[in-house]
Amino acid sequence: MALVSASIITIGDELLIGQVIDTNSAWIAQQLLDLGIEIIRRTAIGDDKNAIMDTLSKDLQAVQLVILTGGLGPTSDDITKPALCEYFNSKLVVNKKVESHLRSLFERRNIPIFPANLSQAEVPENCHVLFNRQGTAPGMLFEKNNSIIISLPGVPHEMKGIMEDEVIPMLRKRFSSDAFMYRTIMTAGFGETAIAEKIKDIEEKLPSHIRLAYLPAYRMVRLRLTGSGADKNILNEELKKLQEAIANRLNEMVVSLEDLPLEQIIISKLTKENQTIALAESCTGGYIGHRITQIHGASKCFLGSIVCYQYSAKELLLGVDVAVLKNQGAVCEEVAKQMAIGVRKSLKSHIGFGITGLLSAGGDDDKTPVGTVWMAVCDESAVRTIKYNFPYDRIQNKEVAANMALLFIWKYINHFL
Amino acid sequence: MALVSASIITIGDELLIGQVIDTNSAWIAQQLLDLGIEIIRRTAIGDDKNAIMDTLSKDLQAVQLVILTGGLGPTSDDITKPALCEYFNSKLVVNKKVESHLRSLFERRNIPIFPANLSQAEVPENCHVLFNRQGTAPGMLFEKNNSIIISLPGVPHEMKGIMEDEVIPMLRKRFSSDAFMYRTIMTAGFGETAIAEKIKDIEEKLPSHIRLAYLPAYRMVRLRLTGSGADKNILNEELKKLQEAIANRLNEMVVSLEDLPLEQIIISKLTKENQTIALAESCTGGYIGHRITQIHGASKCFLGSIVCYQYSAKELLLGVDVAVLKNQGAVCEEVAKQMAIGVRKSLKSHIGFGITGLLSAGGDDDKTPVGTVWMAVCDESAVRTIKYNFPYDRIQNKEVAANMALLFIWKYINHFL
Repeated sequence: MALVSASIITIGDELLIGQVIDTNSAWIAQQLLDLGIEIIRRTAIGDDKNAIMDTLSKDLQAVQLVILTGGLGPTSDDITKPALCEYFNSKLVVNKKVESHLRSLFERRNIPIFPANLSQAEVPENCHVLFNRQGTAPGMLFEKNNSIIISLPGVPHEMKGIMEDEVIPMLRKRFSSDAFMYRTIMTAGFGETAIAEKIKDIEEKLPSHIRLAYLPAYRMVRLRLTGSGADKNILNEELKKLQEAIANRLNEMVVSLEDLPLEQIIISKLTKENQTIALAESCTGGYIGHRITQIHGASKCFLGSIVCYQYSAKELLLGVDVAVLKNQGAVCEEVAKQMAIGVRKSLKSHIGFGITGLLSAGGDDDKTPVGTVWMAVCDESAVRTIKYNFPYDRIQNKEVAANMALLFIWKYINHFL
Repeated sequence: MALVSASIITIGDELLIGQVIDTNSAWIAQQLLDLGIEIIRRTAIGDDKNAIMDTLSKDLQAVQLVILTGGLGPTSDDITKPALCEYFNSKLVVNKKVESHLRSLFERRNIPIFPANLSQAEVPENCHVLFNRQGTAPGMLFEKNNSIIISLPGVPHEMKGIMEDEVIPMLRKRFSSDAFMYRTIMTAGFGETAIAEKIKDIEEKLPSHIRLAYLPAYRMVRLRLTGSGADKNILNEELKKLQEAIANRLNEMVVSLEDLPLEQIIISKLTKENQTIALAESCTGGYIGHRITQIHGASKCFLGSIVCYQYSAKELLLGVDVAVLKNQGAVCEEVAKQMAIGVRKSLKSHIGFGITGLLSAGGDDDKTPVGTVWMAVCDESAVRTIKYNFPYDRIQNKEVAANMALLFIWKYINHFL
């Protein structure tokens, strides 16, 4: 579909034994997609020289760009560099620029520099070094029969640094294609089947050069239209029309036509309106505050969160009525209300939000069905509440509860409640 | 290395365009590892019939077990089932058990059932259905030349449910090997190079049937010894001795010889000693409370967290001295101290913890260098503080700050401070 196809090879036993989750590939894929470069395959293999060379040869038969991550560390289980050195019939030579960078880096952090660290300055003679501003392992670029092979460290911020400083600008010059575009429709509160049923006819009539993908994440389904074409303007018009048609059809399910997380959308709106918000979290344990503060600029509207995991905290910090806690338990509409009102008062925010629920079995509450969650949102004039029953396990219930909490806040500040 | 080798194929455009991060593979890998089944390759491909069939044939040349996840949804972009149907020359037939499960599932959740949903009851005639207790898409098991091919839905809790109910018991019967074991040494506060230097000689003398992997995650390095052998008892002794040797050498770097997250270790210790803890989080925005409440049983010792993202919150909820905030700013030793003491007092906990820092540029604080973080921990008799300067970006600084916060709390409750 795209003009250039690529593959990613992630290297490291830790990926195969499941002790590390690969977040690099997703980030790299998004960067390449923005350049019109389509990933057709992603392979994870162990720290194994032959596996590295085999996978590389195989991918090079199918794609023009291969990005390898990982296995560049200073410890002996990292063997990507020797493998590439052998694959490209080269030998390791010390790169002066990298060596002096290493020495100054260790000086700045004032930690002693070990031989193992200095060995990271050695690179295959026939590679182009990609400078690693933030770390010790340099990236490497090789060329073979009009294909490009790039090796990057597995440490996320180092990989991202090299991609942004060196790789992306180079790829943009070399490969960038205007004829590859996508548009997003963000929905919340509904499942993918309900959405698919509503837009069945639109989907069936999609032209062959435009695809629709459903990206569900706990009642937040992101719809992605991806198209390719010779004429950028025509393609753009086609995608725009389809995006509008789908958005109109889905109507109240849609939260945004931009590919932004809901927390970002909430922060932007509150900031624009000089409104502040404070949270009272029980069952989510601080997760909603965490999600909001992942966004740069959250401090403009987010005052704070009171994580009242225990009865005592609800009572001491939010003035929740002890009698209500005694008689109705912590998971009820009244407690959610008093939490929202209480946190708004104590943090002097425009908007207050409270959430209380039972995400997994066990604990002192035996009356409430597992998965029950009550939420409340308020300002000086009104309080709204909603109840959910989530069917998942502890971890997933926390995820979906946070998603639905953000949706509830978003609806409230947009006057949909 | 293991007696049985396996591969994982994850299917879905969303994985290739990077809008979804694959957490399933890591979980599956861990389950298989516990059965002595080693994953040699993990491939992510798009919703593409040919890619599915090609990858499957290729993997079947190398492994005895292939697990596919994803592409079983009810929407038209999910084509794993037709692909498998074609690959195994079969035809789709309605499975009565699945159909009645679907009907009752939708009845219970009282949502209308669409034809698309019912179509999920159709499975290839020659497959063994793996019942999906928690969702709509059934798992499928095929056999071909003594190899097993298993197809599972991509929704994490559904995939896990089928693995636990059906797949793992079956694999244990069929493949389980006693001659495959591993041991872990959890370290915190140091980088992998420093650790590698300390145990260089031990690592160099490792026998060929035992491997050591470094699994770094923001100043928490997990060391994993993996061994295989004919005699379970001998292997167990070998690994035990090596684990002890490494742990003794690394000494103060080691936090546990069990493969448990630090938050779990802290909760267990506090619970055993009937101690309670309360947190005051500024820069981490609730993330530490979130990490702690991911652990089942956190409610036994975790009272709550005050996320005081703003000056006003620090002042209103924790009684932090306004003069100190004015003169020294929010990121200083005194504020961290007052946060810890303040939250301990207001939540009536045995232990109080406070963290304040500047994780990324911008905001009203222009004096403090980006990456500066102050932490304090206290009980009724003492307060301890520590300062860090983290070199990463906003997201990574939050991650490492939370890790070092947990380490600081762990050290305090173990009287290492």
